Amino acid sequence: MRVAFLGLGRMGSAMAGLLLRHGFAVTVWNRSPGACAPLAAAGARTAATPAEAARGAGAVFTMLADDAALRAVALGADGLAEGLDEGAVHVSMSTISVALSAELAAAHAARGQGYAAAPVFGRPEAAAAQKLFVAAAGPPETLERVRPALEAMSQRVFVMGEAAPDANLVKLSGNFLITCVIEGLAEVFALAQKGGVEPRKLYELFTETLFAAPVYKTYGALILDDAVSPPGFALPLGLKDNRLLLQAGEALAAPLPFASILRDRFLASLAAGEAGLDWSAIARRAAEDAGVGKKTS
Amino acid sequence: MRVAFLGLGRMGSAMAGLLLRHGFAVTVWNRSPGACAPLAAAGARTAATPAEAARGAGAVFTMLADDAALRAVALGADGLAEGLDEGAVHVSMSTISVALSAELAAAHAARGQGYAAAPVFGRPEAAAAQKLFVAAAGPPETLERVRPALEAMSQRVFVMGEAAPDANLVKLSGNFLITCVIEGLAEVFALAQKGGVEPRKLYELFTETLFAAPVYKTYGALILDDAVSPPGFALPLGLKDNRLLLQAGEALAAPLPFASILRDRFLASLAAGEAGLDWSAIARRAAEDAGVGKKTS
Amino acid sequence: MRVAFLGLGRMGSAMAGLLLRHGFAVTVWNRSPGACAPLAAAGARTAATPAEAARGAGAVFTMLADDAALRAVALGADGLAEGLDEGAVHVSMSTISVALSAELAAAHAARGQGYAAAPVFGRPEAAAAQKLFVAAAGPPETLERVRPALEAMSQRVFVMGEAAPDANLVKLSGNFLITCVIEGLAEVFALAQKGGVEPRKLYELFTETLFAAPVYKTYGALILDDAVSPPGFALPLGLKDNRLLLQAGEALAAPLPFASILRDRFLASLAAGEAGLDWSAIARRAAEDAGVGKKTS
Amino acid sequence: MRVAFLGLGRMGSAMAGLLLRHGFAVTVWNRSPGACAPLAAAGARTAATPAEAARGAGAVFTMLADDAALRAVALGADGLAEGLDEGAVHVSMSTISVALSAELAAAHAARGQGYAAAPVFGRPEAAAAQKLFVAAAGPPETLERVRPALEAMSQRVFVMGEAAPDANLVKLSGNFLITCVIEGLAEVFALAQKGGVEPRKLYELFTETLFAAPVYKTYGALILDDAVSPPGFALPLGLKDNRLLLQAGEALAAPLPFASILRDRFLASLAAGEAGLDWSAIARRAAEDAGVGKKTS
Repeated sequence: MRVAFLGLGRMGSAMAGLLLRHGFAVTVWNRSPGACAPLAAAGARTAATPAEAARGAGAVFTMLADDAALRAVALGADGLAEGLDEGAVHVSMSTISVALSAELAAAHAARGQGYAAAPVFGRPEAAAAQKLFVAAAGPPETLERVRPALEAMSQRVFVMGEAAPDANLVKLSGNFLITCVIEGLAEVFALAQKGGVEPRKLYELFTETLFAAPVYKTYGALILDDAVSPPGFALPLGLKDNRLLLQAGEALAAPLPFASILRDRFLASLAAGEAGLDWSAIARRAAEDAGVGKKTS
Repeated sequence: MRVAFLGLGRMGSAMAGLLLRHGFAVTVWNRSPGACAPLAAAGARTAATPAEAARGAGAVFTMLADDAALRAVALGADGLAEGLDEGAVHVSMSTISVALSAELAAAHAARGQGYAAAPVFGRPEAAAAQKLFVAAAGPPETLERVRPALEAMSQRVFVMGEAAPDANLVKLSGNFLITCVIEGLAEVFALAQKGGVEPRKLYELFTETLFAAPVYKTYGALILDDAVSPPGFALPLGLKDNRLLLQAGEALAAPLPFASILRDRFLASLAAGEAGLDWSAIARRAAEDAGVGKKTS
Repeated sequence: MRVAFLGLGRMGSAMAGLLLRHGFAVTVWNRSPGACAPLAAAGARTAATPAEAARGAGAVFTMLADDAALRAVALGADGLAEGLDEGAVHVSMSTISVALSAELAAAHAARGQGYAAAPVFGRPEAAAAQKLFVAAAGPPETLERVRPALEAMSQRVFVMGEAAPDANLVKLSGNFLITCVIEGLAEVFALAQKGGVEPRKLYELFTETLFAAPVYKTYGALILDDAVSPPGFALPLGLKDNRLLLQAGEALAAPLPFASILRDRFLASLAAGEAGLDWSAIARRAAEDAGVGKKTS
Repeated sequence: MRVAFLGLGRMGSAMAGLLLRHGFAVTVWNRSPGACAPLAAAGARTAATPAEAARGAGAVFTMLADDAALRAVALGADGLAEGLDEGAVHVSMSTISVALSAELAAAHAARGQGYAAAPVFGRPEAAAAQKLFVAAAGPPETLERVRPALEAMSQRVFVMGEAAPDANLVKLSGNFLITCVIEGLAEVFALAQKGGVEPRKLYELFTETLFAAPVYKTYGALILDDAVSPPGFALPLGLKDNRLLLQAGEALAAPLPFASILRDRFLASLAAGEAGLDWSAIARRAAEDAGVGKKTS
């Protein structure tokens, strides 16, 4: 199957590379075309517009920064919806709002095109090593058609539901649970430090016992080392995902008290001038509030 | 070494049994003496009072319900402090306040007695299978003397610091992190359910990927099944530990916003008449607030 | 000066009526034209579109339901910006977002038109009795030109700043402080009731001493009587204003923890099926959480 | 009627002085006896112990710093309960816990003595000017007997209930509502300042309209001027009252989300080294979180 991949940041480039490596015929497009070169060298075709990339492809995968970027690429002038064949499928892999995903599902359906959502868990290093996890949702027959490509880009595909936005809600929920871990650890580390207990001892105990999960190991270490620069996942993106979760909660009338606490952590971090840091820098707030943080970033 | 074990609830009975099985000469005591019989049958001596049990023992382990019970057993009339030899050690394994642990350290030091704190992580089944984790703290030489006994009762001993209350702070922190997991999962499960996504699908995805830790598996399943009766760990005990953590936070001037959210969850659960349920029943609150919970317990 | 008034709900009708009574030549417009009749009978001209109403007017006052409605009326096809003369002024009196107010300021400036924001405090009864308070902001010379009209519609005009959005931020802040009063009273009333103290006794004490302000008297009585239907200010409008405040906080990187608590109160009220009630119905949440509320709406 | 007054801090001295001025025969006692001199000069007898002061008095009024002080004075060796005649009344006017008030009621009843609670609202200046408000609770016949004295010490007496602890719950609720005002204003002032609006303009608008109550005027001005030193009401006392309210909430299973937010504000203020400031200094936290506060105290 011929496929297209739109959006060649660190994540997208790695994922498109995996498609090539697994034998897919891939057309790539990126807003700033320089990012296409390595993939073209590896055998990809390049396209001048999303519409052109989509033409003739059985599936088009998008990995863009946010709602605005995806809306422009999908529905804007020369967008992929213009070029996508009837019966072909757009698979949105970005972390976007539940509302936009629903809007795209409707827009593509109106044109006789398929649509699925398949956001991923994992950082760029994981993407390159085919270690991503995919949370996919959409009509079963649509998902079946794109499953080989999704499997080529990940270590495992989980199906979340038959409505595409289901996967977006799950992705936002997952990122939220990560931030809950950051805040929880930040609070106990601050408390321990103030009480004269070495936070690293808590880290070792917890990550080797009840909380022996990757997320505690990764983020616990980032917090202990204040290893927030350069960012693995930038703080404003974390705030964006928090906002999208809260918006989903509002649309569904579902209160989310932990998410609101985290919102204020993100905002206080921005106010402290930390927009350039990793999102785990929100852990500094609990330390500062307890008087054990550095006051400068 | 002759040792004593005071407090033979489900946890204590299992732990004292392990001491016997590992060849320790054990004297047991319990407020209601009936609990002593099985251990006596297995070779333990019984004592009529904590003081009597402590006399001649190199180490006395206590596993009591709360601060009040431990204070009475340790410092009350016929308490263990009365009987404990100079140079012998009291090891408190209960989940108690940081403040009481500090008070006991001082009280024993004034009598020339040793004191260490060694609270445990794990449920009664884990205790019986020698799968507990011990978070120990106290003077290094004190800990070394009781280490063989602690190892006999657990799968691993982690040393948290040289001041006994350090271990109590760690234990309270660990229980707090568990409740953070409960609340975080409760919020996303409620959101997902309201959004038409099956919460069990989130559970499967998360517990097989980023959150593949025992605590997510155990508590996620409890929440999904609303398996809150009979309680594995009773809700009022969860509230007690939350209160002790908040008190430690106040004593150290360390704010704990997540812990305050959880406090209100516990109180709302009590107000809903759920004192007899497992502490994971606090997850019902997020569901109810979102309008997807059962209103009755 | 000839003026126009667009948006004739209960508030707008009362305010336009005051302009007529004070001798202004008023052109009115409303989306559903029936609302124009009483004002026409009192001497107002009517217009078929916002643009037509604006033509020839020195000032155009708008009082619409929300951002979407105002944007359509101001900037849409046949909107007031099309008809407004150069040098004439649009005065937005609706409770809208800070962001839209800034957008309108720029849009009007680009056309050589003036713009000011002048949201009001008070309910429809207050509007009819010329008891509203106006929080106005905009360039001083612009405000001076419309001041006589603003004074005709209110008991007092407060100037908040020289940038129109300043007044919108103030209006949202004021509504937020009202909801803080509702929540604070709800918490102590629930606590008192559970403790066997008659909430009305607290109300009498507080409103005759430290808290002898209209907002405590009005909302305290609404809560005590659960007088939430028909709504004086509908719950979804309260949620909307809360959302606009939180959005302003996000745009300015200013955390607002009380506002987040209130957000969840509003959402839980919606989830409980209370969208048709007064916004003071959020007080039911504290009562329910404490087990003293009625579980039904 | 002969009365006694125990506890001669700024509040107590002013209140005892009013009793003298209204013709009561007053015996005074204070832990550090120097405070008795001015009152002795004004005609008071002095006593060496609370028990001695209580002997022969129809009513004994206490105004102590906290639970511990009151418990010692009331129930300790040479405490007032030892000297108080059968049928005479102890009136506790301090801000104490609901639990201690219940304990005192029982202790006095067991001795055939009366007990009422009558905490006050107002600062020392108000006390001296007989401008305090009294929130009284206790058996009606008990309150009637001490009413003349309470009226001599205040501008008005409000009766809250027939169980003495009712009044203590009301007092804690009132102090809580004051802190809600502080936090609400702090949040909007920080937001306004960050948005380029002069906080003083909000203050003027709000305190002359919807929020025209003494508490907004007083605390709004304190916040705007950062007039936190010397303290009118010290921050640690504010934290104490917050703790007592939260404890009452726990005892009654009544969640108090606003109070929990305030708890963390108080703790963060202590952590910032502000124990010597007025409790309104908690308003600095919202400003700091938004990046507009001074980082030093």
